[in-house]
Amino acid sequence: MRILNLDLGERSYPIYIDTNTLGQPELLTKHIHSKQVLIVTNETIAPLYLAKLEKLLVDYSVETVILPDGEQYKTLEAVSTIIDTLLEKRFNRNATLIALGGGVIGDIGGFAAACYQRGIAFIQVPTTLLAQVDSSVGGKTGVNHILGKNMIGAFYQPQCVIIDIDVLKTLDDRQFSAGLAEVIKYGLIRDKEFFEWLEQNLDLLINRDNDALAFAIEQSCINKATVVAEDEKESGVRATLNLGHTFGHAIETGAGYGTFLHGEAIAIGTCQAADLSRRMGWLNDDDVARIINLFKRANLPVKPPADLSAESFLELMSVDKKNIDGGIRLILLKAIGSATLAMTIEQKYLLETLYEYGRN
Amino acid sequence: MRILNLDLGERSYPIYIDTNTLGQPELLTKHIHSKQVLIVTNETIAPLYLAKLEKLLVDYSVETVILPDGEQYKTLEAVSTIIDTLLEKRFNRNATLIALGGGVIGDIGGFAAACYQRGIAFIQVPTTLLAQVDSSVGGKTGVNHILGKNMIGAFYQPQCVIIDIDVLKTLDDRQFSAGLAEVIKYGLIRDKEFFEWLEQNLDLLINRDNDALAFAIEQSCINKATVVAEDEKESGVRATLNLGHTFGHAIETGAGYGTFLHGEAIAIGTCQAADLSRRMGWLNDDDVARIINLFKRANLPVKPPADLSAESFLELMSVDKKNIDGGIRLILLKAIGSATLAMTIEQKYLLETLYEYGRN
Repeated sequence: MRILNLDLGERSYPIYIDTNTLGQPELLTKHIHSKQVLIVTNETIAPLYLAKLEKLLVDYSVETVILPDGEQYKTLEAVSTIIDTLLEKRFNRNATLIALGGGVIGDIGGFAAACYQRGIAFIQVPTTLLAQVDSSVGGKTGVNHILGKNMIGAFYQPQCVIIDIDVLKTLDDRQFSAGLAEVIKYGLIRDKEFFEWLEQNLDLLINRDNDALAFAIEQSCINKATVVAEDEKESGVRATLNLGHTFGHAIETGAGYGTFLHGEAIAIGTCQAADLSRRMGWLNDDDVARIINLFKRANLPVKPPADLSAESFLELMSVDKKNIDGGIRLILLKAIGSATLAMTIEQKYLLETLYEYGRN
Repeated sequence: MRILNLDLGERSYPIYIDTNTLGQPELLTKHIHSKQVLIVTNETIAPLYLAKLEKLLVDYSVETVILPDGEQYKTLEAVSTIIDTLLEKRFNRNATLIALGGGVIGDIGGFAAACYQRGIAFIQVPTTLLAQVDSSVGGKTGVNHILGKNMIGAFYQPQCVIIDIDVLKTLDDRQFSAGLAEVIKYGLIRDKEFFEWLEQNLDLLINRDNDALAFAIEQSCINKATVVAEDEKESGVRATLNLGHTFGHAIETGAGYGTFLHGEAIAIGTCQAADLSRRMGWLNDDDVARIINLFKRANLPVKPPADLSAESFLELMSVDKKNIDGGIRLILLKAIGSATLAMTIEQKYLLETLYEYGRN
């Protein structure tokens, strides 16, 4: 078993990565400190893994909330549904909430845990590749608002993250590819060696080879944990994890939540960020081609939707969280393996990217 | 000017107590670090103090949300209203939210600030005695659920608390008395000398003598700040601040939010806690009489509503946050000036208090 530690002082926690972690009750139960456990999951995951998780919890008083599946349900109403259940079932503040699902379930469940009685314990059991390599690690929780993604939320760290590689066997191809977008991101922003490993081993990953998956998940989590430990509340370097996300959030919001998977939108957004980095003089044509090519090999879209105009992008990007006092700040690439927060982007280059990239 | 510091490491902040603090722009502006400011207030306070506050902020881009007045509006919907405005007006994560009002406004505004983009700066400008001595200090924010008070919230500290004693001039008598309930609480739980000062000076307070008010507010805030600094997240001693609150929350929820003011319910609840402390053998008849008498002199109710049965109390008390794994835990008094978290309350005594206290 690979065990990583996210070092956040008194809020530190382990990330367990292995096959069959859901067959090991003590991994879970040593992090639960009361009888009451609420499992939050969705309609897709419940038939697959809920019984397996419940089997680990026979000695506990377990309740379950099953939400509909999809980013469009990542709303304050979903959080209310969970809190209604917690109250109706008289959960006290020592209770534990387990989020069993992908990024949406982790974000909703984590935020509900953060808010209920001003904070109860929670545990992440991510069931998508994207959640395993990104959203379950680092304590960002929250829900969407019709005017912007993740606009309502909290920084709230789990007790532990339990990653079972076996669950990726049932993940559909589209979801799996979406997860690869965030894996590729780590290589791009801070780990050139990993990016090159991905170029060489992407086919193994696509074929869901266990060893390749374990390595890619571990490297992703190491990169994520290192960045989060340095900057938990995103006042500096953590922002580099948002490579492609300002473009990507605009795509998700503009196209309507649920049209694109988060990872798909991030793939497109990262290609846009790479194009803009080239216009800024930081990447060369070959770098951009390598990036686009790797996303394509991962079966990810690389062009923005034709009906989302440059004007819509500008409008949507200006409400993104990463923007301070009106100016647009973006994470761009100085090189493959090196991201930077660009504060003074020449408007001309941004407009060129929006008007030209992927428009033909 | 009296300036207290709430010592919470990197989350430390000052509490300013004086007359005319709302005439001193720099007190406020030195804690604001961006152009965008949202003032959250209510329909009662806005006509009285909103213009005065806005005058301090002429150099800022100020928006306002005016909520209806009352505990019954302390809901997730009110938080949504604030977040809608923040997004519609494109507030970024460097923005500051100012809560101008009583405890309800501070709790709602603070929770909205905690959640918006996972946390923006906020400042408390409490306008009721209760908010000045209690709810504005210590970082508890949140809203009510139909099944329980403050069930949805966050621990989220402000940048500063600005207490202007002059605003108490416009506070109606009922609200003023409600604030005195929490002032008396500090004497009861940890400051016998202050309790005795209150017995001697209550008439000065009732007449809103500035010096007496400044002293009582300062002593209350010192007591609160000391307890919070020791136990920010309420894993221990902070629970003693909840003297009377488990009974009180049951009264508020049972009677319907808005029927009793929070301080009124706490006065009754504290008398119930005193009665139970006597049955436990900790207070004598004279202690209980002194406590009830002081609340009466502060024009506060001391008996539970006749239509709230002992059975309803039990039902409502069991969902209170202070209860762990089914057992009822209550803050009781070992003596005047000394509170304790009673974990093993004899059911018999609790029932006697519920069936007998104030029922004749």
